Amino acid sequence: MSVVKLEECRQHIRAQLDGVVEFWLKYSHDTVHGGFFTCIGRDGNVYDELKYVWLQGRQVWMYCRLYRSMDRFRRPEILEAAKAGGAFLRKFARVSVSGNQWKCAFCLTRDGKAVKVQRTIFSECFYIMAMDELSRVTGDKEMQMEAEQMMEQLIYCVREDSSGLGRPQLLGDVPTNSMAVPMMLLCLVQQVSEGRLEMGRKYAELGSWCVSQIQQHIQRDGTAILENVSATGAELPGCLGRLQNPGHALEAGWFLLQYAAENDNKKIQRTAIEKFVELPYERGWDTDHGGLFYFLDVDGHCPTQLEWSMKLWWPHSEALVAFLMAYSQTKKPELLEKFFKVYEYTFSHFPDSQNGEWFGYLTQEGKVALDFKGGPFKGFFHVPRCLYMCECILDNLLAKKD
Amino acid sequence: MSVVKLEECRQHIRAQLDGVVEFWLKYSHDTVHGGFFTCIGRDGNVYDELKYVWLQGRQVWMYCRLYRSMDRFRRPEILEAAKAGGAFLRKFARVSVSGNQWKCAFCLTRDGKAVKVQRTIFSECFYIMAMDELSRVTGDKEMQMEAEQMMEQLIYCVREDSSGLGRPQLLGDVPTNSMAVPMMLLCLVQQVSEGRLEMGRKYAELGSWCVSQIQQHIQRDGTAILENVSATGAELPGCLGRLQNPGHALEAGWFLLQYAAENDNKKIQRTAIEKFVELPYERGWDTDHGGLFYFLDVDGHCPTQLEWSMKLWWPHSEALVAFLMAYSQTKKPELLEKFFKVYEYTFSHFPDSQNGEWFGYLTQEGKVALDFKGGPFKGFFHVPRCLYMCECILDNLLAKKD
Repeated sequence: MSVVKLEECRQHIRAQLDGVVEFWLKYSHDTVHGGFFTCIGRDGNVYDELKYVWLQGRQVWMYCRLYRSMDRFRRPEILEAAKAGGAFLRKFARVSVSGNQWKCAFCLTRDGKAVKVQRTIFSECFYIMAMDELSRVTGDKEMQMEAEQMMEQLIYCVREDSSGLGRPQLLGDVPTNSMAVPMMLLCLVQQVSEGRLEMGRKYAELGSWCVSQIQQHIQRDGTAILENVSATGAELPGCLGRLQNPGHALEAGWFLLQYAAENDNKKIQRTAIEKFVELPYERGWDTDHGGLFYFLDVDGHCPTQLEWSMKLWWPHSEALVAFLMAYSQTKKPELLEKFFKVYEYTFSHFPDSQNGEWFGYLTQEGKVALDFKGGPFKGFFHVPRCLYMCECILDNLLAKKD
Repeated sequence: MSVVKLEECRQHIRAQLDGVVEFWLKYSHDTVHGGFFTCIGRDGNVYDELKYVWLQGRQVWMYCRLYRSMDRFRRPEILEAAKAGGAFLRKFARVSVSGNQWKCAFCLTRDGKAVKVQRTIFSECFYIMAMDELSRVTGDKEMQMEAEQMMEQLIYCVREDSSGLGRPQLLGDVPTNSMAVPMMLLCLVQQVSEGRLEMGRKYAELGSWCVSQIQQHIQRDGTAILENVSATGAELPGCLGRLQNPGHALEAGWFLLQYAAENDNKKIQRTAIEKFVELPYERGWDTDHGGLFYFLDVDGHCPTQLEWSMKLWWPHSEALVAFLMAYSQTKKPELLEKFFKVYEYTFSHFPDSQNGEWFGYLTQEGKVALDFKGGPFKGFFHVPRCLYMCECILDNLLAKKD
């Protein structure tokens, strides 16, 4: 693969990242209440004022990460918006649910009243990510402490006692290892440990536990990554047990690759590439129409998720990062070839050349099925994180080639 | 419209109903634990053994209704399966959730262990429908009493205090009149009152309240039916407030038509036809590809539901009943024309001529997107209820023409 092609690719990704940042700077800020509008239509119009907490936390995180690590984004308006988003979250996201227990809401009104609370850990996860990254930029030690305290509660909830989530105890609801949980925890370990030796030591065991929990999802003699397994790593019965989510596996893949690099662990690197990057791509790629399926059943049954065959922006974002990182760590040309295959599909289908940003949801055939730029689950996160990660990796690859 | 065409239609619908009943008799019975498998693949294979309580209740109800009202279905195997389904529900569906409160589960394992409980009323609704109809067939007074007691609790939950559902009280979660609730209650009023004068009197006020709650969904100066309105009948902000669900409006339409006929109320009949039958059809019909959209935004924004543009079996089932019932009450030829337009689309797209039953989920363009015959939300209910209702209405129409 020529340096020229990589350089072209970097230029394109840089320009895409610039455009995506401008889009959200222009349309998403709520200058009255702080925080971000995330329901943003094709041409930038706000079609709903609800504030989804995952997306508030993710946008604060992404703004701060860009501000902190890329010179051209060290702009006051980015920092101010991140701070206003952080203040909005701290003021409104925590709600008391029963007795003296509290949770982070899933969704708030524009002025911060809780609309919905989920019985999962993810609002808390994105809250922690936001607070940790924001405190790195502002130097706010109290905020950093808050993130650490919430992290401790989260770990207790995942590893010791999940009753705080408010789910009723049901005999048929067997303990499950869902990919999202150890992935998200590993992501948080990497977040709070970055550049902090003491935190790295504190969470080393947790990181290792997350990696082993993620590896439990390698099933069927290593031929499939299953999204949900039992607490002891066995296959679960029915649709739940047979579910494959290729985008999620690919995202786990690059989390594992980062972990392998940080810990200089070749075995985990090999597992990450073979099982969490190459395998979900092979299983998940639609050979008829191109693109990655959203869900698949490992035995070939039809998934029950109505959107199973749709092509979503985020699995493609994760695949780009996963293949480029895998290539950067190994220099195996077949990994770069796959990166460019995903790249071709992604950039010929998702970006909206007319109004900026990416469409999020295509039909199996690649037609735009939902034309908004932001919605309850699509915000300023997967697209800019992918572009940011790819640009960093390409900078590194090209610097070494100079 | 000629009698010959109506007669052909009746023959076709009769044959369809026979085929659908045979499909579920053959593939869905769990002879070990009682109850029904509802995750049934294209060719009849059980691809998941979970038992969804809505679908258990609905199948018991539908079997008993067919047994009770159509001679050719007065078959011991149908009654036995319904009884076994009823016994399964009575044994396992109720679970205690906190303190001395209980709810009906949403989903059970094959042997009856609760997997999931929803914070809504619908599992209870289908439980009541099942028990009431089953007790009419078996004469089991205790079962009928149980249905009536649960009905009282349900009414209390909807009209007085919904805290038993287990939802946390949130400031931004404003009381909402969702179409499904008064529709479902009206359906239950009609169920428990049928042929029982005393019950009819007892629930007359409730029925009238349901009708007025349903009519609150007529919005925008009568130009749209909105799925969710405020508790006082005002439009709600955002996507939630702008949501249209044409299939649901059409289903409400024929519930209202039944109510209008029972109460000899021409005003409600006219409202039902103009606002709940003709209007959602006009708004919801896809003029490009045919068929009814699943969801639409009244202002033309893209809905956030990923499946908004898909064509589902049940809105088409409801539309068939609604237009045929509207025609049978008014004899207006344009209503029969619309019935046949929906009929053409429905029978040329949904039935599986190879393996029987109907596909449930098509793409906007009409391609089969999910090929199973039963899943978490598709069981032995909308298809046979539609065919049963249409056959009855056609019998009536044709008898009068003789």
